[in-house]
Amino acid sequence: IMALRHYTLDVRLSAPADSPSIVRGLQTIFQEQEMTETVHNTEGHGYLATFIGKNGRFLILRVLSQGLVTIDLQCSEGDDLAHVDHVGVAFRGLPALRRGADVDRYWPTADGRLVEYDIDEVVYEQDSDYQNIKILHSSQFGNILILNGDVNMADSDLAYTQAIMGGGREQYAGKEVLVLGGGDGGILHEAVKLKPKMVTMLVIDGCRKHMRKTCGDVLDSLQGDFYQVLVEDCVPVLKKFAEEGKMFDYVINDLTAVPISTAPEEDSTWEFLRLILDLSIKVLRPDGKYFTQGNCANLTDSLQEYEGLLGRLSCPVSFSKEVVCVPSYMELYPSQTRHCNYL
Amino acid sequence: IMALRHYTLDVRLSAPADSPSIVRGLQTIFQEQEMTETVHNTEGHGYLATFIGKNGRFLILRVLSQGLVTIDLQCSEGDDLAHVDHVGVAFRGLPALRRGADVDRYWPTADGRLVEYDIDEVVYEQDSDYQNIKILHSSQFGNILILNGDVNMADSDLAYTQAIMGGGREQYAGKEVLVLGGGDGGILHEAVKLKPKMVTMLVIDGCRKHMRKTCGDVLDSLQGDFYQVLVEDCVPVLKKFAEEGKMFDYVINDLTAVPISTAPEEDSTWEFLRLILDLSIKVLRPDGKYFTQGNCANLTDSLQEYEGLLGRLSCPVSFSKEVVCVPSYMELYPSQTRHCNYL
Repeated sequence: IMALRHYTLDVRLSAPADSPSIVRGLQTIFQEQEMTETVHNTEGHGYLATFIGKNGRFLILRVLSQGLVTIDLQCSEGDDLAHVDHVGVAFRGLPALRRGADVDRYWPTADGRLVEYDIDEVVYEQDSDYQNIKILHSSQFGNILILNGDVNMADSDLAYTQAIMGGGREQYAGKEVLVLGGGDGGILHEAVKLKPKMVTMLVIDGCRKHMRKTCGDVLDSLQGDFYQVLVEDCVPVLKKFAEEGKMFDYVINDLTAVPISTAPEEDSTWEFLRLILDLSIKVLRPDGKYFTQGNCANLTDSLQEYEGLLGRLSCPVSFSKEVVCVPSYMELYPSQTRHCNYL
Repeated sequence: IMALRHYTLDVRLSAPADSPSIVRGLQTIFQEQEMTETVHNTEGHGYLATFIGKNGRFLILRVLSQGLVTIDLQCSEGDDLAHVDHVGVAFRGLPALRRGADVDRYWPTADGRLVEYDIDEVVYEQDSDYQNIKILHSSQFGNILILNGDVNMADSDLAYTQAIMGGGREQYAGKEVLVLGGGDGGILHEAVKLKPKMVTMLVIDGCRKHMRKTCGDVLDSLQGDFYQVLVEDCVPVLKKFAEEGKMFDYVINDLTAVPISTAPEEDSTWEFLRLILDLSIKVLRPDGKYFTQGNCANLTDSLQEYEGLLGRLSCPVSFSKEVVCVPSYMELYPSQTRHCNYL
């Protein structure tokens, strides 16, 4: 399928009175390129014209009051960009948007910013019963796991795994560890190196094959000397553990980020998060620790909401947080590790 | 000045034959919003129509052969987005481009990807004799220094300074250190903590006031117990040092990244880089080390060109490299520290 390149070129004129001569200069250039102009009636909202060229080239020239000039050029991939850089003003050109391409390179951050990744291959794509799973290859971050459109974990992101395990300050040797989620296998892969008594992992989807740099061979078998992987919904299993009085030294929740919405009454994710948190505290030894991720550092309201929730749990907890840089996220992820000391 | 929001919504139809009904559905919606349609003659390159609405709203609907449908909507900031999400297809919407805004949020990466920063304030802007200097505030990265449009250093980027100083593996105590560039003061700030004999810094522009988290108070005075800052062009000073036989244990070049262009004969930056490298080696003790940054990990050709250059220096050197994640760069920066052991 033919994909489009969409170039944007903007300039704010220091003297709005220059607009007419800029427009005339650009019109001349576009006409030289044999583009057909249509001037639109904007009912007083500035000058707006569209130009149709050869090979499906399409250009929009807009001049808004007070001197903002914008140019949009859409052309097919491989077409040469028409030169608009010799009309006497410095246009600010951004890298072209690639639209309708086979591989999507745009994966916005949790706080809604547009970022382009260096994706060169779709490694895996599947709709599971629970979510849309994509594994895309980035030339710098390696394989990236994307769940429901959110960048989750890449080969480059050992920093994430290290942070959610306590930043290297914990002694896992001889301890019982419960991992909720963590389907990329990173936490399990790192934890078994630390000679734990037993790591139990509750997960619904695994990344055994395509996130090998993250999980190593630890997901090749669901059972090892120091670990077991239970492919089950975590809520009933947690309830069963709590009833049986089964206790852990560490619970690492890699299931859920703090929801972006700050309205707990409207977002059932908050209810789920609270349920997991309550059940986790029930299976945690009195001196145990609970680790989880927060969300993007910019979502201060959501993080505050979460900290309020920690104060309203059925038993009191204390907590601390740490901000880390996860390479493939392209944003700072504060409260990445939020560890709650059971009191 | 009125700024624009530019929304893009794209969908690739699984059955291109659905195009006419999609177009009719969208036309109906746009007409309900009292938008005036102009259908353009594309000479066989698909359906293309522009719609002009109230308050300067402007919409483009394109249907390309084989089922790519694109919608562009430009409206003023604060205008509500027209709803195009109930026509039976799932459009992929990206965060709106903010065009003509007072503060520019788009600072492409070294490898040409479009990334949006959470910029909320222009802290400082100035054209010096050498470059355009901007300091912009990001809510997550803190103050960001941007030189000639390239993101250089932010409050969040201690990792950069640590890497270019040798990743914490060097003993600076009692040593003589020469810093080239480093106008943000980060290297000097960290180096003086390590009890060096003397740090000499050669710099043309300083960030004393606005990059305080990076430089501390070290740039408040050009002279301290263990350092001196020379505000001079580094080439003649390096030549003078070489003539006088002045020698250093470490030379840290924070002046120049490896050029993006891979054609040394066409880019004088390569010549400058080679000159600095040759002069630096001349003032380096036989067991001294030279540290510098590379460039974005994706620029493999440029980095290879640079490594070739290291093999053609007037005296033989060995080198190693390390890739680090610099938070505000939003890309991996390999060969960040390239340390060359003088043989």
